[in-house]
Amino acid sequence: MKVGIVGASGYSGEVLVKLLLAHPRVTLAAVTSRTHAGKPLAAVIPALRGADRGLTFVDSDPAALAAGDIELFFLALPHGAAAVYAKALVAAGKRVIDLSADFRITNLATYQNYYGEHHAPELLGAARFVLPELTPPGWKTEAKLVAAPGCYPTSILVPLVPLLQAGVISRAHIVANAYSGVSGAGKKAEETYLFVERAENLKAYGLTKHRHLAEIEEQLALLTGAPTVIQFNPHLAPMRRGIATTITVPAAAGATIASLYAAWRKAYGASPFVQLLAAGETPETAHVAGTNRVDMSAVLDARTGNFVITVAEDNLMKGASGQAVQIMNLWCGFPETAGLL
Amino acid sequence: MKVGIVGASGYSGEVLVKLLLAHPRVTLAAVTSRTHAGKPLAAVIPALRGADRGLTFVDSDPAALAAGDIELFFLALPHGAAAVYAKALVAAGKRVIDLSADFRITNLATYQNYYGEHHAPELLGAARFVLPELTPPGWKTEAKLVAAPGCYPTSILVPLVPLLQAGVISRAHIVANAYSGVSGAGKKAEETYLFVERAENLKAYGLTKHRHLAEIEEQLALLTGAPTVIQFNPHLAPMRRGIATTITVPAAAGATIASLYAAWRKAYGASPFVQLLAAGETPETAHVAGTNRVDMSAVLDARTGNFVITVAEDNLMKGASGQAVQIMNLWCGFPETAGLL
Amino acid sequence: MKVGIVGASGYSGEVLVKLLLAHPRVTLAAVTSRTHAGKPLAAVIPALRGADRGLTFVDSDPAALAAGDIELFFLALPHGAAAVYAKALVAAGKRVIDLSADFRITNLATYQNYYGEHHAPELLGAARFVLPELTPPGWKTEAKLVAAPGCYPTSILVPLVPLLQAGVISRAHIVANAYSGVSGAGKKAEETYLFVERAENLKAYGLTKHRHLAEIEEQLALLTGAPTVIQFNPHLAPMRRGIATTITVPAAAGATIASLYAAWRKAYGASPFVQLLAAGETPETAHVAGTNRVDMSAVLDARTGNFVITVAEDNLMKGASGQAVQIMNLWCGFPETAGLL
Amino acid sequence: MKVGIVGASGYSGEVLVKLLLAHPRVTLAAVTSRTHAGKPLAAVIPALRGADRGLTFVDSDPAALAAGDIELFFLALPHGAAAVYAKALVAAGKRVIDLSADFRITNLATYQNYYGEHHAPELLGAARFVLPELTPPGWKTEAKLVAAPGCYPTSILVPLVPLLQAGVISRAHIVANAYSGVSGAGKKAEETYLFVERAENLKAYGLTKHRHLAEIEEQLALLTGAPTVIQFNPHLAPMRRGIATTITVPAAAGATIASLYAAWRKAYGASPFVQLLAAGETPETAHVAGTNRVDMSAVLDARTGNFVITVAEDNLMKGASGQAVQIMNLWCGFPETAGLL
Repeated sequence: MKVGIVGASGYSGEVLVKLLLAHPRVTLAAVTSRTHAGKPLAAVIPALRGADRGLTFVDSDPAALAAGDIELFFLALPHGAAAVYAKALVAAGKRVIDLSADFRITNLATYQNYYGEHHAPELLGAARFVLPELTPPGWKTEAKLVAAPGCYPTSILVPLVPLLQAGVISRAHIVANAYSGVSGAGKKAEETYLFVERAENLKAYGLTKHRHLAEIEEQLALLTGAPTVIQFNPHLAPMRRGIATTITVPAAAGATIASLYAAWRKAYGASPFVQLLAAGETPETAHVAGTNRVDMSAVLDARTGNFVITVAEDNLMKGASGQAVQIMNLWCGFPETAGLL
Repeated sequence: MKVGIVGASGYSGEVLVKLLLAHPRVTLAAVTSRTHAGKPLAAVIPALRGADRGLTFVDSDPAALAAGDIELFFLALPHGAAAVYAKALVAAGKRVIDLSADFRITNLATYQNYYGEHHAPELLGAARFVLPELTPPGWKTEAKLVAAPGCYPTSILVPLVPLLQAGVISRAHIVANAYSGVSGAGKKAEETYLFVERAENLKAYGLTKHRHLAEIEEQLALLTGAPTVIQFNPHLAPMRRGIATTITVPAAAGATIASLYAAWRKAYGASPFVQLLAAGETPETAHVAGTNRVDMSAVLDARTGNFVITVAEDNLMKGASGQAVQIMNLWCGFPETAGLL
Repeated sequence: MKVGIVGASGYSGEVLVKLLLAHPRVTLAAVTSRTHAGKPLAAVIPALRGADRGLTFVDSDPAALAAGDIELFFLALPHGAAAVYAKALVAAGKRVIDLSADFRITNLATYQNYYGEHHAPELLGAARFVLPELTPPGWKTEAKLVAAPGCYPTSILVPLVPLLQAGVISRAHIVANAYSGVSGAGKKAEETYLFVERAENLKAYGLTKHRHLAEIEEQLALLTGAPTVIQFNPHLAPMRRGIATTITVPAAAGATIASLYAAWRKAYGASPFVQLLAAGETPETAHVAGTNRVDMSAVLDARTGNFVITVAEDNLMKGASGQAVQIMNLWCGFPETAGLL
Repeated sequence: MKVGIVGASGYSGEVLVKLLLAHPRVTLAAVTSRTHAGKPLAAVIPALRGADRGLTFVDSDPAALAAGDIELFFLALPHGAAAVYAKALVAAGKRVIDLSADFRITNLATYQNYYGEHHAPELLGAARFVLPELTPPGWKTEAKLVAAPGCYPTSILVPLVPLLQAGVISRAHIVANAYSGVSGAGKKAEETYLFVERAENLKAYGLTKHRHLAEIEEQLALLTGAPTVIQFNPHLAPMRRGIATTITVPAAAGATIASLYAAWRKAYGASPFVQLLAAGETPETAHVAGTNRVDMSAVLDARTGNFVITVAEDNLMKGASGQAVQIMNLWCGFPETAGLL
């Protein structure tokens, strides 16, 4: 099966190229980039020297891509730009997995509030937000277009959804502090992302208004059946990859650490990519680097009555490209872990 | 005035040596270390090459120190060990500033619960916990022994105390996530603190039971007049120095971001070491590295009704040795910023 | 085919486990460790959570391993300890690939001079040092025991050997400065390797007497037919993985940058793991991280008459475990890149 | 005495501001910046919060500065731009210390070859390159304009000049490999200097043609009396500050490690900023961070007949702003270490 990537010059695009080049069930047949058209992949992604199978970047005309024989496309474009490609490709019957935010939000008004104008609202009905461990399986037949979740939302939805569904935690006073590696900001040549500015440095940013809130709260509501407001505090940490999220939430009346883990085991017992650590053990971002895993654990703080949930993932893998490949695997009937383990 | 340091081979000891060597009002007359006795300071602290004024480490017999002409001692020892020296030195009429936890906790049972046996409980009455910006000034005459605050507590007490005193925030549902550089763990040759383990890595640790909780909650109660339980989640971040603390707390009824800042300005308007950043601007650990400052700011999240407070300090300066020098300055009648600006 | 690893608790052992678990042609049947016997692999190597195929560390009795049905063993032990296992396993007809220094040196006196007593000198005749791109292919049938090269030597032999063979460079005044990530020092809980000591820090070490000199100079002599003395200056750089080596060497009379590249292309044109960058482009350690590659390039400095050769490799891959797997692939008739691309 | 800084928005400008604000003998009376005019210093340099003495950036008109009462100016501008200011200020009788390359090169043709057009060649006669430990003291009365040395040249000239003068080392086959922290590249918002690109990464750059060669070789010739060609290989290391330089050079006939150290001690015995480490001990960049020191040591490699000299400095201090302040101290008759120890 031939697959293509539209727009692969950022950090998650680069990871996606590597994953698909090594994937046992698909052939990466095209990688587009306006800036780099004509250059060998390895000239732009030096990590691929000797391993790019002679592929070169091609110019990315939606109509030409739609007319070709590639069956499935990954869109690794900024939001806004993705919608334009999605329209042409879906119309041509291609499967599309979009890594941008364009189709993550079901509610158009919410999208507009957080992101501005939507360039293909007519596709929202055919699109599905898919977090493989949580989204009901109907999407595999219904979807024409799949939106892969954002990095922060994955690290928050995976631990919280089963707990809200099981009634183990309070829906009020949920506080999520998340710390991301600098690759989460993308490959932007801005002063604030320079090595000298970010090394030995840590700060909060985007407080009260980070765009991922739209997706987190909509999914919490859709998947657990009730509106849920969370305090989400994103931070930038001096590392390249990884997200560590620590969530504090009051235990529901009668809930114990055992009932929390029971809910998690029920949801994720068969999941290859969610690893539950014992209470008291905490996940570390370096342990999930390069993997498609979410590692998580929890403790109950008897003094406060809160559960403290700690989560680690690789923002470029389970938080972006790994998860997109996992979605492809499920959509196309491949083993879920193909190319990911 | 002659001062001495007992036990200076750790990271905060090293910073303390540098501060005192450069201090305009005191002479560093002795630095003790059992391990390094006889060696020049610069042989152990290479950053001091050419700048150690010929000082060598001396062996650290409490009786000999008590008999000498040094007027004030800093104890940079592990808890437990500090109490032994404090006894001898206080008995000899020396002023003592202790950087360990031994005299930070007023309540003996609390100390024993978190730290185990206390080796000089009879001194607790003569000891004062002093966070200069918050502790009422009576300590300057009452104290025979001053306990300098811990690194995490400083980053939590400075923002919270004036807000609790002013009734601007709730006393329930306070959540403090703190991220410390690795020097906070001390100079311990353990696998978990190796460069390869900690670089590109971030994790929570010590959840629900970190020893600094004892000091944080006792001081919150003493300074604000009511028991206060907080959720404190410490983390280890891949940097050498710095603590970034993010606190989420429900706004009190009617409180606004303006009333929060008014309370802070009233408490810290004249303070050289507390810097208030505008709401929306967030402090960064690199900006306070090497300074004795606490930088902090807050926003009100209208969606959740929470204030989100962000704080940065250098754990070895305002979180340890800088604050100890600030205490000395105030105790001895020097300008508060002497040797610190 | 079943393979085993003896002693896998260090950094290169960990990488080797990952490579062999994912290898398409072999089954990792045993991983030994005295310290960790009885523990699941993932309990010691958290990066393998959910991916250790249920393997647990076993105790490592040479006799028991020799009696079992595993055909090939990798020894990831300190030098000295490796020889003991090698004796038992070779005697039982097992293939052995040793990642320690024990069998890298052909000349016993040289070994003793650099490393002290040798614990299995009688095996030296049956052992072969194999750097796959350089060692003549006879080893595949002659060897009973293969010594995989050290990390620094690989980064020096790969660029230099073809140039000395082709007479393109001087044999005098060769200066190699090499900068290694901290994992090169192994997983040692010593103060000097702590995060706080090594971050933001760079230093030379082991000048004039680094043990890898023994191997570098012996191989230069054996492979190029004449004694060759080099100046080798190793350094420690603030990164986890990677070696960057910069070699200065006078061009031979009449040699040009074209003749240098011609010699390299002749030697490595068909090699999947040696990538030649254009003159003027310099390799970067991050570009080879996680790969089994050596990236290299050269310029001719007209002012000095020197070639300046720059080389990058991953010290744990091409510098250790990746190369060991490459050796296995060639020895066992697998595709050279199996499990490595 | 009032001093001013022209152009202080880069990394060395920031360090210079801090040094001058804390200097006991001068008053920082003006800091100019076109971009930041009107802003408080601390708004641009957050490390100065509460410590900028109310100073704001002012617009930088050369004529206005020339007409004012500031006696000495530091130029922290890009080369080319510095010459323009130097003309106006020198004409007005101000003392000028230039941190750019504009007046480091005595020979106009050399300057033009490496840097292009010179904008004030008529000032070359009045300008002096001053490396305080090496430049003969006549400059204090002759100079109207002083060029502070570059970062790499300082780390090469300090160790080599006394050895060439004493005839202890060969003048041929000098190889200097230097590794700089990323701040050496300046505050440039380019992809290659992003945190994600430079962390865990090390590379050579600028081989054969780095501009600092002009200054290194001219000074070697002027100070030691004979043309000297060196191989200079600069590299970028994953740290913010610091330069580590390793120099290999053949020992002169009969020279010993003792004669090398004797030459160094003769040159630097009284120097507060050059620290000689014992042979076998190697300097580390972290040990000189924030200081104005050059730490250095050497070993003789009996196998090769080379001295291996290792050097560490802080590129922003002894390599730029610290040295500029040291020059001011000497020029104005202040203690050499004023504001620097």
